Amino acid sequence: MLDIQRVGPDRARPADEPPHERPDDVVELVGPDAIFNAHHSPVGAFASVTLGATGAQGGLGIGLEGPAGADVFIGVESVDGDRFDLLPFFDPGADDRARYDAHLVGAGGDGPPLRPVPAEAITREFGASRDTWRSADLTFSLFSPVGAVPDPDVHTEREVADALLPAVLAELTIDNTTGHRPRRAFVGYTGAAVDAAMWRVDGWDGLVGVAQGRATALVSDSTDVHGGVGFSVGGILADAEGGAGLGRIGLLWTMVPAGARRTVRLAFCFHQPGLVTTGIEASYAYARHFPGLRDVAARALGDFEALRGRWAVDAAALTAPDLSEPRRFQLAHAVRSYVGCTQLLDDGDALRWVVNEGEYRMINTLDLAVDQVFFELRHSPWLVRNVLDAFAERYRYDDEIHAPDGRIAPGGVAFTHDMGVGNAFAPPGRSAYERPRLRGCFSYMAHEELLNWTLCAALYVARTGDHRWRDSRAELLGAALESLARRDDPEPAHRTGVMGWDTARTGDGWEITTYDSLDPSLGRARGSVYLAVKSWAAYVCLGPLLAAAGNAPGAALAAEQARRCARTLVAAVRPDGVLPAVLDDPSVRGRVVPAIEGLVYPWFAGVTDALDPAGEYGELVVVLRRHLDAVLVPGMCLFDDGGWRLSSSSGNSWLSKIYLAQFVAESILGRSPGEAGRVADEAHARWLRDPRNARWAWSDQMHDGLALGSRYYPRGVTAVLWLEPPR
Amino acid sequence: MLDIQRVGPDRARPADEPPHERPDDVVELVGPDAIFNAHHSPVGAFASVTLGATGAQGGLGIGLEGPAGADVFIGVESVDGDRFDLLPFFDPGADDRARYDAHLVGAGGDGPPLRPVPAEAITREFGASRDTWRSADLTFSLFSPVGAVPDPDVHTEREVADALLPAVLAELTIDNTTGHRPRRAFVGYTGAAVDAAMWRVDGWDGLVGVAQGRATALVSDSTDVHGGVGFSVGGILADAEGGAGLGRIGLLWTMVPAGARRTVRLAFCFHQPGLVTTGIEASYAYARHFPGLRDVAARALGDFEALRGRWAVDAAALTAPDLSEPRRFQLAHAVRSYVGCTQLLDDGDALRWVVNEGEYRMINTLDLAVDQVFFELRHSPWLVRNVLDAFAERYRYDDEIHAPDGRIAPGGVAFTHDMGVGNAFAPPGRSAYERPRLRGCFSYMAHEELLNWTLCAALYVARTGDHRWRDSRAELLGAALESLARRDDPEPAHRTGVMGWDTARTGDGWEITTYDSLDPSLGRARGSVYLAVKSWAAYVCLGPLLAAAGNAPGAALAAEQARRCARTLVAAVRPDGVLPAVLDDPSVRGRVVPAIEGLVYPWFAGVTDALDPAGEYGELVVVLRRHLDAVLVPGMCLFDDGGWRLSSSSGNSWLSKIYLAQFVAESILGRSPGEAGRVADEAHARWLRDPRNARWAWSDQMHDGLALGSRYYPRGVTAVLWLEPPR
Repeated sequence: MLDIQRVGPDRARPADEPPHERPDDVVELVGPDAIFNAHHSPVGAFASVTLGATGAQGGLGIGLEGPAGADVFIGVESVDGDRFDLLPFFDPGADDRARYDAHLVGAGGDGPPLRPVPAEAITREFGASRDTWRSADLTFSLFSPVGAVPDPDVHTEREVADALLPAVLAELTIDNTTGHRPRRAFVGYTGAAVDAAMWRVDGWDGLVGVAQGRATALVSDSTDVHGGVGFSVGGILADAEGGAGLGRIGLLWTMVPAGARRTVRLAFCFHQPGLVTTGIEASYAYARHFPGLRDVAARALGDFEALRGRWAVDAAALTAPDLSEPRRFQLAHAVRSYVGCTQLLDDGDALRWVVNEGEYRMINTLDLAVDQVFFELRHSPWLVRNVLDAFAERYRYDDEIHAPDGRIAPGGVAFTHDMGVGNAFAPPGRSAYERPRLRGCFSYMAHEELLNWTLCAALYVARTGDHRWRDSRAELLGAALESLARRDDPEPAHRTGVMGWDTARTGDGWEITTYDSLDPSLGRARGSVYLAVKSWAAYVCLGPLLAAAGNAPGAALAAEQARRCARTLVAAVRPDGVLPAVLDDPSVRGRVVPAIEGLVYPWFAGVTDALDPAGEYGELVVVLRRHLDAVLVPGMCLFDDGGWRLSSSSGNSWLSKIYLAQFVAESILGRSPGEAGRVADEAHARWLRDPRNARWAWSDQMHDGLALGSRYYPRGVTAVLWLEPPR
Repeated sequence: MLDIQRVGPDRARPADEPPHERPDDVVELVGPDAIFNAHHSPVGAFASVTLGATGAQGGLGIGLEGPAGADVFIGVESVDGDRFDLLPFFDPGADDRARYDAHLVGAGGDGPPLRPVPAEAITREFGASRDTWRSADLTFSLFSPVGAVPDPDVHTEREVADALLPAVLAELTIDNTTGHRPRRAFVGYTGAAVDAAMWRVDGWDGLVGVAQGRATALVSDSTDVHGGVGFSVGGILADAEGGAGLGRIGLLWTMVPAGARRTVRLAFCFHQPGLVTTGIEASYAYARHFPGLRDVAARALGDFEALRGRWAVDAAALTAPDLSEPRRFQLAHAVRSYVGCTQLLDDGDALRWVVNEGEYRMINTLDLAVDQVFFELRHSPWLVRNVLDAFAERYRYDDEIHAPDGRIAPGGVAFTHDMGVGNAFAPPGRSAYERPRLRGCFSYMAHEELLNWTLCAALYVARTGDHRWRDSRAELLGAALESLARRDDPEPAHRTGVMGWDTARTGDGWEITTYDSLDPSLGRARGSVYLAVKSWAAYVCLGPLLAAAGNAPGAALAAEQARRCARTLVAAVRPDGVLPAVLDDPSVRGRVVPAIEGLVYPWFAGVTDALDPAGEYGELVVVLRRHLDAVLVPGMCLFDDGGWRLSSSSGNSWLSKIYLAQFVAESILGRSPGEAGRVADEAHARWLRDPRNARWAWSDQMHDGLALGSRYYPRGVTAVLWLEPPR
């Protein structure tokens, strides 16, 4: 059984230690359950201190597809001085000295051995901002922000700079109150970048530090802290000069006197100056405020308490009193991975918000944006507008469409899947992902992304009341509606409310949905029940939006399409009360949970009458509830461990979408999770901490519980829906 | 036997092909002998297109410790179109698509398979500038500069910019004159950097290209060339849109019509903007002339013929009519690796020349500088002055010294081993390498480096006649002499001419020599016969230099020390005519070739009367010749394959020092190489091309022929001594 408990009496804390803050977002994990990587990241820096899995699996990275895969050394000399005890986040076997002289390896001189403490001796308190490990008399915490970005049109430059500070704070405490000899304690890391060496920072006023090149640093302003660079932790600690030379390890260390308890304040700092992207040439927005690592270090340590306090408050807002521990854990974990993927760029004229798609690094993948919108609208709705505008201005296109029988017709406005990949912005109207002549992964998502842009826009306007923006985009919103309707069928008389035509960009292929790597139950766009309900949601949300923008004919069309779609869906119900996954292809036998996904949008946009079982679309809502009840049973859409299976015909299930569906099921369809829900939540949390998945922080695609794709991923912030107050 | 032949009738060239230039520096290698990595590098950009070993072992890199380890794709569709034939510089098994959807791997759609052509089908013409591979009707050449850097105080900005252009040129020719169908031909690479994606260059006027981030690009200005980015070569060639999306491969391709012969011009471009170093903050000097990759690409292709022609002329000057093929091969290979390690920086005030120490990347290691000085003084003596000044201004220190019995005395001026490592300049007076309390690798090299600075200065002045610089450094030169003498013994009456005191920075350790990873026969500095002869050389060179600078007492002291040293050495000869490796430690049984190394300096500085067997130091010269004759025999300083063993007691032998010793043996000691010399040269060349070493381009440290250290290394340009005209 899962060993997650709300933080209660602190078993690991000695009696004389002051009590920790216990924000409700923090869960306590013990032993092997505590051993998994998580992101610890600044906002908008696409940077991470990834930490928590055993071995050299974490480390510091900027712009990477996964963890740096490098050591982080956190440890203390044992009471007897016969060894160093370290949290197990390093590779005890690596030795770079063989390249210089094979005789140096194992030749001694490194002092006592390094012992990774066993998982059983570790307790971890894991929240969205604070992540604390305790082992015996060692306590190490990382503190990081939870994703808010103040709107620079509204907030002061200083407020913006503070929010963008590319640093993560840390604190090491050693309790040597019962010790009889002084003990060395240390924090350090192996530089993972390949183009520059580690070096000891000298001359950053008042600070001690080690750095790799101009990109990463670990600094402290505590007294009696020393820095060193070398081949081994022991070698650095033994070197009277501190070491400022060869070797990939940078270490800060201090001596903890006998009978004393010492806390060292630290900051992990990131910096990448100058232009970092192509296609659109842009720099990190933080570089305007912090010209280099030194500036980052000074601010991080200078404002340590204020920053940590602010982040704790933000993190505490990311929970709810009745949120279960497995959900608390997953939400905090997902928020971390989201923050680690974020990038705020400055193209010289304007700021550009980017969420990189985890290990794939696609820029602002629009089918992820529509999932992340719930999170972003809580803190920083201007980011949603920023991305919508970028799509509207550069990543839209007008296409032709084709029917399954090959007829071609004018299509309408569409949006690309993404804006490029890995700091390379794609040319206008092109994505990195989409390619022609395919019927699976890498095909076009014209309909999916048209819905996503429209829904993000509707949610943005609904949550912010930004009517000026709505009106400035009224024409595009109208064109989007028209395009959706034409993709149903260019001939109004033939419309069903459901997508029937593919973009001609697919050539002899067809469009897919965001569920690109699932089986045909969710992959194909045309006739997809998932996309159909989402289309209904878009029509339902567009109606009032267009009406408010003065587009009465558009509002009428939207309403008509919504009705058509609902009718089509209700008519598609099988005798067993279940909706087929693909409305027009009985050969697809899978049954899918995401049929209900679309219901979230009217809810979030406040168009709640559309969700009233007694209202205009009540029949559809009831059908969807019945569908869910029918599929969410063992042998269909539940795994053996009780976790949710998005499609009965695929072992590939996506946590971000499970979170979303859980919210719809509980808060919109009124389905009480009960014991099965508790078991499911625990299964989902367990998947993330499976040792086979532990390297990848938060991952989305789980194949029978194994993270084989969409790892190190931002999308899980759909979990923030769990915090939505009931309506 | 080694299959190296001077380029004779070109077996691979069809009759109608125009004859190639055949500069004498080019050797032809056939089959497995052709399969090894070499650098192809701009000057001063610390960048390389490393190419030639099988598999994903080469690729494009900036500032790395070794090859990027990535694919380079060079190939052509087969005559029948049933496959693509590629030079074998890629990994046929890699497929990144599994991360997106496991079903995509092996699902087809990539067109015909890629076949690496077997080594047996490859002929390579290998010179210092041109490197050409031929296989059937495919010919691929890379062109790169050979290391000259015009003095910016003398040459125009344009001349300097041209020399620093961070690009390597390439040409692909496909002979389809007998073909009956059009065939696709291509060149591409897998992006090895981890922080940015590959992208297709659009909108660089007139050019087609692919790039990774802002750092590397492959471009062409030939007509009908197309660019694409994707997961596989076949996929890119099959994609009508050319691909500008996911995948790590960037490819340029063209169609060669039936009956035609086509040549495509290409350039591999590098760029790293902004500050790239720490300690001293500096940028690449080229960045002043070329703001970005686009500028590099435009110049490289715009000046293609002029650049190629200039480099060919420079390369032709790097040979001699009577230079054997193994030496021709080794010289060209060494020059390439040297160039790949070079870095010209701009700190805002001044240019700074850096040679990075190969896989170790130490900055301007002074014991390498003294070996590279022979090469640098040919083309660009200002680089030697630049490094001497940098040591004089920042990397000198004054120390205390200690005797073996523990007495302490003031020392004098000394120089650090290096200026830092991996773009991190060390603090003033500190190296990255040296550490206290050691008696082997990583100990101090105060005496070694003091000699090296002094000898570089003497050679610089002798070869340039730069008396203004000599006079500006007269005080330091005098102090260096004084320091050398004090390290013999602070008390003049006790001096022997040989180092007797270690720098007190060693603590309870002792100094070592540049031969840090060899055994005690060459490792320890004090009493080292190698260092003793080198000290004699320094005294011999300093005498006339100080006299000319008006320091008559210094000149007298230098002469006195030289005589003392010669006397000590001559007295140390054993009954068998051999000098011990360590004069004062009979327990060291090894016998060493580098005893003769120091003779090169008086020769190169023009102090040739010191080398006259009938002159003042004739006895020493004769002793050294007898020593060499005695040790250069099987079972002592020859390996079983006839290669030279620097120390009879170590299997670790260094090619750079062998080259130097060969020059001393032949040109100074008058020893004819004969058949044994031919066998040795072939053995040395074979070491470099051993498949186990082939990844590392030119390597220095050979352990029984295996490159275990000092790989990817600049030091081999001592081979340029082979070109010195006889005196």
